Amino acid sequence: MEDRALFAELAEARCTALLVVASSSSDPDLAPFVASARLGECFLVGSQQTGIHLGFLSAMEREEAALTELPTLDPEALRVLRSEEVAASRGEFWNRVLSRAFEVIGLQPGRIAVAGHGANGPLHGALSGLESLGWEVVSGDQMLLRLRRFKSSSELEEIRRVAGATCEAFRLVAKILGGSKPKGRELWHQGAPLRIATLRSAVAVHFAKVGLEQPERNLIAPAEEGAVPHNAGTDDRILRTEESLIVDLFPRGRLFADCTRTFCVGEAPTRIVAAHEAVQAALAQARREAQPGARGWDLQQGVCKAFAARGHATPLEVPGTTSGYVHGLGHGVGFEVHEYPHFRRRAGSEGRLAAGDVIALEPGLYYPEEGFAIRLEDLVYLSDDGPETLTPLPYDLDPLAWAAVGV
Amino acid sequence: MEDRALFAELAEARCTALLVVASSSSDPDLAPFVASARLGECFLVGSQQTGIHLGFLSAMEREEAALTELPTLDPEALRVLRSEEVAASRGEFWNRVLSRAFEVIGLQPGRIAVAGHGANGPLHGALSGLESLGWEVVSGDQMLLRLRRFKSSSELEEIRRVAGATCEAFRLVAKILGGSKPKGRELWHQGAPLRIATLRSAVAVHFAKVGLEQPERNLIAPAEEGAVPHNAGTDDRILRTEESLIVDLFPRGRLFADCTRTFCVGEAPTRIVAAHEAVQAALAQARREAQPGARGWDLQQGVCKAFAARGHATPLEVPGTTSGYVHGLGHGVGFEVHEYPHFRRRAGSEGRLAAGDVIALEPGLYYPEEGFAIRLEDLVYLSDDGPETLTPLPYDLDPLAWAAVGV
Repeated sequence: MEDRALFAELAEARCTALLVVASSSSDPDLAPFVASARLGECFLVGSQQTGIHLGFLSAMEREEAALTELPTLDPEALRVLRSEEVAASRGEFWNRVLSRAFEVIGLQPGRIAVAGHGANGPLHGALSGLESLGWEVVSGDQMLLRLRRFKSSSELEEIRRVAGATCEAFRLVAKILGGSKPKGRELWHQGAPLRIATLRSAVAVHFAKVGLEQPERNLIAPAEEGAVPHNAGTDDRILRTEESLIVDLFPRGRLFADCTRTFCVGEAPTRIVAAHEAVQAALAQARREAQPGARGWDLQQGVCKAFAARGHATPLEVPGTTSGYVHGLGHGVGFEVHEYPHFRRRAGSEGRLAAGDVIALEPGLYYPEEGFAIRLEDLVYLSDDGPETLTPLPYDLDPLAWAAVGV
Repeated sequence: MEDRALFAELAEARCTALLVVASSSSDPDLAPFVASARLGECFLVGSQQTGIHLGFLSAMEREEAALTELPTLDPEALRVLRSEEVAASRGEFWNRVLSRAFEVIGLQPGRIAVAGHGANGPLHGALSGLESLGWEVVSGDQMLLRLRRFKSSSELEEIRRVAGATCEAFRLVAKILGGSKPKGRELWHQGAPLRIATLRSAVAVHFAKVGLEQPERNLIAPAEEGAVPHNAGTDDRILRTEESLIVDLFPRGRLFADCTRTFCVGEAPTRIVAAHEAVQAALAQARREAQPGARGWDLQQGVCKAFAARGHATPLEVPGTTSGYVHGLGHGVGFEVHEYPHFRRRAGSEGRLAAGDVIALEPGLYYPEEGFAIRLEDLVYLSDDGPETLTPLPYDLDPLAWAAVGV
């Protein structure tokens, strides 16, 4: 992140400084500042006057802190041990540490934007304490979302890497599904019933091998389970022929990727084929319309109209519907799975796509009463030269068709 | 968790209610209430008068919410969509949602303990908003640490399962180290130099197979890297003979386990052997003294004295020392890697061990200038019948000795 981008945001918000308090350096509001360093509890104070400093609480993390190449406030300078001894609560401790940090760098009380994620009780206490010392505390969450929105070239490279590994995980899933055999309606694989747990484990092992984590887990949800969009899928559920299977993976390296495909082993029922065709057409339409300058909400409306024209309910006409198309079209992806740009009706500049955005587009159709669902999701980078799909995978329901295209 | 334990804590703290706000159901303050359900943003309100309710923000999570068996406040009852439309900030949104929840369950303003983890800016805004509506907000972090301290039988079973899988990971590491061959001082494995990345990947794949995560990663740190206790170890570092290698694993299922061993391939230098012997003796001493009623600080003092008698610096005599014994002796383990009981000098009842505690004991010796370090850590359950080691592994430096005891 460019320092001047931060200082411009602070000026715009009439803030003296930014304060990010985090329980670890992988906090999405802190991570953009610290490259690949790994620390526990830490914080960042940035202002035009003082520059950007990183504070950390454990002397044992001095080497990791040095990797950030930021000027640091170490536990000794922050008088961490002393504050741990005298503070009656974790809130008072943090208030003391932060006050000391401001003193050391010479930052006078003013209007301060606060971001990062931590323990609600102690942080509220610490921030209320700052207010009583003359600080005006405002939330910096939207400022950080804006600052994190446009990726540096190294951040974009990392998203590409994670997206590539995600594609490999999908090919692995297709291979397992394609290699399974039906016994009646049940799928069997290597002499045992094929359960969701088998796929989940294969995916987890693959990501572990390439150093990715799944902090938000994944969704591998067949038939009736996939028909409720956030249902993660039950591990011991045995997969069956002729049913839908939604696989939605969103692993993290330094940043996230996000991709969804839907499979159906055996002959897909007509309803599933038709819904899949409608969703694939909606995704193609959204991708065409995902141009810098377009509003996410306009894309959402366009997809709603296309679904409605095929007879599916949508939230545009049936707010809160739980069958048909039941959710938003997409979201930005970066240090969090869901970030700017937004696709909501009421959105300001964060609702308008721009060159440099990395977005997930994910139309879907859900029929809980019929026990099936389809979702297809691609990760798209809006380059200056037009949209680029970072998850170039087949869309086929049939995993055997994936093999035919060179899996 | 027993409802009555919560109500007793609330009465003791003169609080009307507990409010836990969480970005997911794996929040350590929320997880004890929701069994294995998996939700995104959610919250819990508990009071003697109203009982305990779970609120959630996405209608797509209704099935997961039902798994908690708690009475729920769904997005419709909470008027989530309406609040998203009218709120100018995420803080105002949360203030509206929480106020609505209190209204629905009939909870009048009073003193409320707040726990959970979330976005600092918005939560501070929401809680300040509650204060202006007549609530007195106090931090509930210590209350939750007390409530989480003693595990239910299912929680203890889960820690046992995670500890068992952790032991298997150590046996795997010992097997790889034991099967490696020296080329000069470098270790080679399967025709390539043995790097930390190889061990880290083997561990990650093992945990992935058994459904465990490493949200706090791990430490696999040789020689000079291990000599700074929180140094995670550099992936591309090639391992060598006759150097120390600290392996500290702390994976999570629903709860965490925590275990450390130190290896040395080839003939261990005298200094390493002597330090290892001292650390193993300190661990044995700590385990003997880890009886219900003992204070963690007394155990720490005992270990410091034993190390000092062997000529090692300790924080008791040399506060802030970075060579010799440089940290605390142990910590409780549960929904977080570090929780109650504490081993600090200034601790109240949370500093006294009790039957039912699950604790990690982890003495170590660190010599950064000489480039080696030793740490041994066991997870111990203080049952009514005495301490039980949940990580029954060899302590040997030599991985080949592990094979001899049936690895």
